[in-house]
Amino acid sequence: MNFLSHLECPKCQTRHDAHKPQNLCVKCGAPLLVYYRLTEAKHALARDIVRDRPRSMWRYKELLPVQDDRNIVSLGEGFTPMLHARGTGKAIGLDNLIVKDEGLNPTGTFKARGASAGVSRAKELGIREVAMPTAGNAGSAWAAYCAAAGIKARIAMPQDAPEMNKLECQIYGADLTLVNGLISDAGKLIAQGVKEHGWFDTATLKEPYRIEGKKTMGYEIAEQLGWRLPDVVIYPAGGGVGIIGIWKAFGELAALGWVEPKPVRFVVTQAAGCAPLVKAFNAHRADSEFWNGADTVASGLRVPKALGDFLVLKALAESHGTAIDATDAEMLAAMNTAARGDGMFICPEGAATIVAAQKLRQSGWLKQGEEVVLINTGAGLKYPEATRDAVKS
Amino acid sequence: MNFLSHLECPKCQTRHDAHKPQNLCVKCGAPLLVYYRLTEAKHALARDIVRDRPRSMWRYKELLPVQDDRNIVSLGEGFTPMLHARGTGKAIGLDNLIVKDEGLNPTGTFKARGASAGVSRAKELGIREVAMPTAGNAGSAWAAYCAAAGIKARIAMPQDAPEMNKLECQIYGADLTLVNGLISDAGKLIAQGVKEHGWFDTATLKEPYRIEGKKTMGYEIAEQLGWRLPDVVIYPAGGGVGIIGIWKAFGELAALGWVEPKPVRFVVTQAAGCAPLVKAFNAHRADSEFWNGADTVASGLRVPKALGDFLVLKALAESHGTAIDATDAEMLAAMNTAARGDGMFICPEGAATIVAAQKLRQSGWLKQGEEVVLINTGAGLKYPEATRDAVKS
Repeated sequence: MNFLSHLECPKCQTRHDAHKPQNLCVKCGAPLLVYYRLTEAKHALARDIVRDRPRSMWRYKELLPVQDDRNIVSLGEGFTPMLHARGTGKAIGLDNLIVKDEGLNPTGTFKARGASAGVSRAKELGIREVAMPTAGNAGSAWAAYCAAAGIKARIAMPQDAPEMNKLECQIYGADLTLVNGLISDAGKLIAQGVKEHGWFDTATLKEPYRIEGKKTMGYEIAEQLGWRLPDVVIYPAGGGVGIIGIWKAFGELAALGWVEPKPVRFVVTQAAGCAPLVKAFNAHRADSEFWNGADTVASGLRVPKALGDFLVLKALAESHGTAIDATDAEMLAAMNTAARGDGMFICPEGAATIVAAQKLRQSGWLKQGEEVVLINTGAGLKYPEATRDAVKS
Repeated sequence: MNFLSHLECPKCQTRHDAHKPQNLCVKCGAPLLVYYRLTEAKHALARDIVRDRPRSMWRYKELLPVQDDRNIVSLGEGFTPMLHARGTGKAIGLDNLIVKDEGLNPTGTFKARGASAGVSRAKELGIREVAMPTAGNAGSAWAAYCAAAGIKARIAMPQDAPEMNKLECQIYGADLTLVNGLISDAGKLIAQGVKEHGWFDTATLKEPYRIEGKKTMGYEIAEQLGWRLPDVVIYPAGGGVGIIGIWKAFGELAALGWVEPKPVRFVVTQAAGCAPLVKAFNAHRADSEFWNGADTVASGLRVPKALGDFLVLKALAESHGTAIDATDAEMLAAMNTAARGDGMFICPEGAATIVAAQKLRQSGWLKQGEEVVLINTGAGLKYPEATRDAVKS
């Protein structure tokens, strides 16, 4: 039983058929969101159905887009640990600080969730070849799941992306192009290939299902807390898909009656060297401007303009959240804090959430005792360059 | 409720008190094994008690050494996925090939299990400072769990160990010494420090609890197969703790009545450039000889002489198993096979299990249809050097 209903544009509300390949809204060009028959699901599904299922994000399969289980391409993604960060929490004055450690995913990052959902649905819809630009880790994840699915993957990434991301694409057999520029430049190259060769475009939010994989972080946060929601979620935003997904998940969970509705404040953190969402939030804008000269050690945060910016900013506004930036030096210091204090070797992007928590605690925005969930989007293992700097700092 | 009974020497059967710190058998110098009151546990514990527990190796806590849950140092280790390797299986003629992917552990390898058990028990016994030699990954894992536990870790590793292992020890705040030589040389240095400064020696099998962490792989294999045992387990042996642990686990599970007893054949694979156990097995010896000039891309297999060699060889003999070596070129090729065929980026040590499976299938020792579990001990991510070679090969 699956409750997929349709796709809908969150900007102009145009409905789209979910049972054929779709990219952006044909009317206004915005990313599409996936809708489910939640009222029907509320009556048909108790949350206990997931209890005995395998430890993967597919435990919530009725609320994911794949119609036939045989199309699920899984490498064990999801159901990552939620760890009480006692040492780090003590250092910054928050005794209820929890890290959701997405480094324990296949390919070492949360990108595995989006790739598992996106590739599975692409396989189900008969797509044989996909193409995407990436800052690095999404490309690795899509290359892995495409290899498992037998789908050809064409990946373009900045030539100064972490070496491991390139090696991953290569070992998985993806077609890899290195671009002298940023993810936005890689995007232009892919867009051209999509136009010329008819590749299916799986750039961030240009297909609707990646977000469905990411939303499972929200389902898991609720389930792992004993089917309740935390006070605050802090998320390091590049493209911002994860926070849109978690926000969507909390809404679905309330509609399903699986959790009591509760106001959760969402916080976005970005690198000081590339902070278009922070700038837009502070200027009370509904969307962001292209960030020129993006530069940060947190390669996943080098996204000068996110296609889903308006959705991220909406989530922040509606949840009474906020946006905070972190310098590279602050991120490197926070990597050391988490490693020494809690034995957690997190990525620079994940470290930015600690920096944000610290600043928000200092300003009084966060109160001692509040339950704060930090999303560590990947394993520090994938960042030898940043780690070299961190241990020297 | 916990069923820890005592420690016993598997060579001379001398009993040792489990409730104080112990290293090797005081009588004969062999590694000690942990015994539980299994008959009592059989009546008191049903396997269903683990069903609703967190997805970590501590779900089997009654059969692990820690007496007080507050001493458990956990970073989300264990309950790693068992993945059907369809592409690789097809390539080598085994349609029931399963990879237990230990890369999805904290610190990216199965070493997290041994460290979680060993550090937790050390904490419980009041130990404040540990020291160990390592080929690389065990040091990283112990550094992480010691940081989480607030225990000082002193690690010695070969100077040509993978760079990431060094960075991990540094970021976790361990005291790291690089040695111009092999793990055996690092061992001499640590032994000297243990003697001079009274550090607690946590070298492989020199403390009894690391093996208890590793044995949880065996518990999980059984649980994840629906509480039954596979036909064959193939394991890449450096120190060999994992295979001793899985062998011990299958025995305990049968004694507990949690699985039907079944003859499982154990296979050990080693690098052709360092294969003391393979050589000893082929010579029908009960222990191995020091391997001179150890050299392989699989850094975890560069162990010239394992302290538990006699236990590994016993497990192979009693289970009607075998031992097979793999060249570096074969391992690198198998890394590509798994990545391209199944989207699994495994480590060179894990790739050696594919090489062994392929050779054993060709010789007829493995039959089509047999359920064969390969232990991928770590994430390929931790091996940029080997991966560079693999993508070129």
